[in-house]
Amino acid sequence: MNVLLAHFMVPAKNPDADAARLARVRQNSLTKPPGALGELESLVIRLAGLQGRAQPRVDRIQISIFAADHGVAAEGISAFPQAVTAEMIRNFARGGAAISVLARSLGASLEVVNLGTVVDAGDWPEVRRCNLGPGTANLAREAAMSEAQCAAAMNAGRDSVENARANGAELFIGGEMGIGNTTAAAALACALLKAEPMTMVGPGTGLSAGGVRHKAEIVARALALHAARLGDPAAALYCLGGFEIAALVGAYVTCARIGLPALVDGFIASVAALVAAQLCPGAGQWWLFAHRSSEPGHEQVLDALRGRPILDLGMRLGEGSGAAMAVPLLRLACELHERMASFEEASVSAKLS
Amino acid sequence: MNVLLAHFMVPAKNPDADAARLARVRQNSLTKPPGALGELESLVIRLAGLQGRAQPRVDRIQISIFAADHGVAAEGISAFPQAVTAEMIRNFARGGAAISVLARSLGASLEVVNLGTVVDAGDWPEVRRCNLGPGTANLAREAAMSEAQCAAAMNAGRDSVENARANGAELFIGGEMGIGNTTAAAALACALLKAEPMTMVGPGTGLSAGGVRHKAEIVARALALHAARLGDPAAALYCLGGFEIAALVGAYVTCARIGLPALVDGFIASVAALVAAQLCPGAGQWWLFAHRSSEPGHEQVLDALRGRPILDLGMRLGEGSGAAMAVPLLRLACELHERMASFEEASVSAKLS
Repeated sequence: MNVLLAHFMVPAKNPDADAARLARVRQNSLTKPPGALGELESLVIRLAGLQGRAQPRVDRIQISIFAADHGVAAEGISAFPQAVTAEMIRNFARGGAAISVLARSLGASLEVVNLGTVVDAGDWPEVRRCNLGPGTANLAREAAMSEAQCAAAMNAGRDSVENARANGAELFIGGEMGIGNTTAAAALACALLKAEPMTMVGPGTGLSAGGVRHKAEIVARALALHAARLGDPAAALYCLGGFEIAALVGAYVTCARIGLPALVDGFIASVAALVAAQLCPGAGQWWLFAHRSSEPGHEQVLDALRGRPILDLGMRLGEGSGAAMAVPLLRLACELHERMASFEEASVSAKLS
Repeated sequence: MNVLLAHFMVPAKNPDADAARLARVRQNSLTKPPGALGELESLVIRLAGLQGRAQPRVDRIQISIFAADHGVAAEGISAFPQAVTAEMIRNFARGGAAISVLARSLGASLEVVNLGTVVDAGDWPEVRRCNLGPGTANLAREAAMSEAQCAAAMNAGRDSVENARANGAELFIGGEMGIGNTTAAAALACALLKAEPMTMVGPGTGLSAGGVRHKAEIVARALALHAARLGDPAAALYCLGGFEIAALVGAYVTCARIGLPALVDGFIASVAALVAAQLCPGAGQWWLFAHRSSEPGHEQVLDALRGRPILDLGMRLGEGSGAAMAVPLLRLACELHERMASFEEASVSAKLS
């Protein structure tokens, strides 16, 4: 482990078992057959443990979108041109992207972090610039980034989470944007899970079957090129990752270190969580998984993380959009937990013996 | 078909294909890879067709909960005492039940319709009384209700939907409460789908494995007793159903007749939809399925209706609660559809050829 990344190798905070226990007792007192709210019950009990209070809330939500370009786009692995990364940063700033609409509708704080694009995205008050270069290098030919770039990207993610906590956020959502980043994420997941590229790559923004095969070949070439360094998760991250993926890793580790629950989005975000789980033992306790992406590699990554997603809507947009969709369900679970009457309060007869 | 029920044998209205087509064109213009919002895209396109407008909304929602007792409770097929039906009606009226909390949180109108309980639930301004008797007769020994009671219950459901339309509702949710009603629903589903009782019954509010076997025996006995009349869906409904199930049937047929989209809840509501589908050809076009219940028979019923539920959270509470949980997803799907920028508006590059 290199010294720049060493401060992310920290233990996770422990959730509050007493708060979770009190929440479980309350759930079992409410006027419904025990267990009848299904996963809404387990989610609210987990949130109680993570927030250290028997009545958890997710009113104040921070959404941070990390955006960056990928040198591997030169290999023709995306259905969209690379200029779209910068164009979408402008779309986030102007409020026209899916996550912009969702954040407004949810009353969530939305921050966009530009970590470096090929085309200049311009300056926007809504966009934090943290320019690490015009995208990563081509991971199929050299390390995607230097260790110093990787550490800086992780620090950017850490800063977002620390700011979120300082601003009173009760839940953190990280999102990503970057043409080519399903290729980087698939390569990283293959390295960490020792998986075959064809089982991990998918259409991303819309490749044909032939495009998916080509993408798998690029991933295989990258894995062969960097093979000697892939035993170490931090090295795998800087050889194969992206600036925005490294930022998500830094964010998720920080959530676990300071004890802020994170709602993990789809495939790319889950791959970042996989890296974070290897860097920070116990970190996985701090993450809820929002949705099952239609990107085929997501299943394997979720299995490795023992993640059980809340939604399964065939989404594959990124930007934190799947996580945002799950927020109202968490909010309603908290409302039910707080406001339903108990059997005693409502004078409802208990279950027969 | 008896004359009392004949006015429910009506054709369904046709959805507006032009509105659906315009919504599809708009979805494909928005700044996301085509299809990347998954089922949110198909849901909003369907809603556009059902509401006859390219920009559908589900701001104004009517939730009607139909409650009644079941004579079959005498066979010991429920984990809770029969008094709970009336006690829960009071809990709905006082605002302490799950659906009360959800309706408030969603800003939905909530109506409770008491169709007849064993214990008097009292008078409440929030509860519409439509007393058809102290619950149904025991379906394992005689017809659960008379044809006149069945028609009156269906009319109660019809009235709720017609009032919802008159009050400007954009979506209708029907819910149910009645100790013993998973037994009635399972019997009805077995009759309509020619299924084996053990494949259709489940724990309901919390039966043991032995209790579930006993429930299957009761259902088998009822199916044998009424066998000669079960070829006709209306006769199956009055022999095996419940007042609240018949009310849901009347509600769903009326939704299809007048063209108001319905969001169908779990197992019991889906069985009512199955009856409605047999009475009213084409009615199924007007229903969205909110969630997959953990009650094991739901899967077969959904398959028969070709229903693809939005959520799968292991819920099994009834009261329309699973449908209420899906409302925020429909609302966010409509928001995205209306407010996202198009590729042209946002100057984002299109997909490569």
